[in-house]
Order: sequence, then C-alpha cells, then structure tokens
Amino acid sequence: MDFTLHPRLAAGTFELGHLGICRVLLKNQSLFPWVLLVPEVEEVEDLHELALADYQAVMSAIREVSLFVADYFKPEKLNVASIGNQVRQMHVHIVGRSTADPAWPGTAWAFDGKASYSAEQVEEIRSAASAALNLE
Amino acid sequence: MDFTLHPRLAAGTFELGHLGICRVLLKNQSLFPWVLLVPEVEEVEDLHELALADYQAVMSAIREVSLFVADYFKPEKLNVASIGNQVRQMHVHIVGRSTADPAWPGTAWAFDGKASYSAEQVEEIRSAASAALNLE
Repeated sequence: MDFTLHPRLAAGTFELGHLGICRVLLKNQSLFPWVLLVPEVEEVEDLHELALADYQAVMSAIREVSLFVADYFKPEKLNVASIGNQVRQMHVHIVGRSTADPAWPGTAWAFDGKASYSAEQVEEIRSAASAALNLE
Repeated sequence: MDFTLHPRLAAGTFELGHLGICRVLLKNQSLFPWVLLVPEVEEVEDLHELALADYQAVMSAIREVSLFVADYFKPEKLNVASIGNQVRQMHVHIVGRSTADPAWPGTAWAFDGKASYSAEQVEEIRSAASAALNLE
C-alpha cells in the first residue's frame, strides 16, 4: 500500500500495529494514555467523507481501541476526537483521562506538558495492545 | 422517556429535534456552526460503554449531522469530539471550522469568544436541519 504517514504524526509516536484499515499509534506521552488511529486513506480529511463501509470500520476500530484503553489503563474518562486543524491527514485521538492527571479538566490538545515512556513501557503497552486487539 | 438534559448542556443551546436515540442541539455560537448530539442514555458516560446497537446508532447520527453541517455551512474542516470532562452527561460535539474563524487553528473548546445567533438565524438553521435530517 502506498500510504504515507504524515511526518508530524510519525514524530513522537510509536507504531503499535494495524487494526482494520487503521494504523494504530501510541503517542509518546506517559502523562495519560493517548492512542491515535490513522485510517489509511489518502483522499479525504474528515470522517463523514469516508465511504460508508470505511466509516463503519473506523468507528468499530475506535470502539475496540477505547475498550482496550479503558480496560488496560483504567482511566476515569475517555476523550475521543477527530480534529486535524493543524495536521490534515485524517486521525482520531483516543485519550484516557483522570481527575488526577496534570491537564484535567482541560483537553489533552491544549496541554503542553510532556513525559516520555521508557522503551520497556512501550514494549509492555505494544504487547498488551497487540494481544487484546489482535493487531497486525 | 425519563431523560433529563444536563442544565449546562441546555444552557446556551437550542433544541433542533431528535435523530435516532440522540437529542440534537445547536450551540448558540454564531462564530462557527456547532451541533451537539446527546444520546438519551442515563447509565454510561463514554461512547464505548454503549451497547453495540446504541453505539452504531450514535455513530450513524454523527455521520448524518456531519454531512448536514458540511453541506449547509460549508466549513473547511469538521472537528468531532466526545470529551465530557466537565459535563459528564454523554455528548458529542460536531463543529464546522474554517481557517478564517476566530479560533483557528485552536479548538473550539479552548476558545472564549462568543456571538449569539438571532432568532431568525436559529429558525433558518432549525428548518434546514429538520428537513435534511428528518428530525423528530
């Protein structure tokens, strides 16, 4: 496949695998769990512009990843969003939030703080996600 | 039905009607088109916690409202999100954004500016939404 991930999505993320038509990325932000789903489509930027079957596939992937994030990280709340004002390549954020996290109750997108994962943490999350979601 | 809209969602919005299991609200913010979908469920706060059929119904409503907002208001980009950190009653934002709008490229949620619709504008939008979406 000819799909090229936008360099700003590639930077600061770790690829976890593929789920249906989506690439699954973990943002390198250990302050809260933050997964990005990138549908591997080139022509359109907004979810409603996807063909119906692709839209449904992405919505199903969002649900599965949300269930994984909720189950594995045990956040109090999920924030799910397709924004893309700055990076126009279609991508969906799934962020686990808790009242004790440093950005609460603001959004993750308006928050500048950063903390990186260790290589071990990334491997643990990749392994858990891969098993739970049957990632390819 | 026993559903009660959260007072902070009721304040500053106009009810446009019902679409499937969702109440459809127009935010009183004329700086950019902003529709809220409120699934009329009481027990859960996050989308992935919905029963699968309800989840699919909400995703379908999001797509239909997105198509309406794109077609009627002609924004350059849609921002679609379920956040709910402050108002925990489940609700989904569908916001039409343009590079010329005053919050661009930031998010609508991090923006404090406000401008109200006139009663005539609200009626026009309600009528168009009702016809396009077959609202009840």
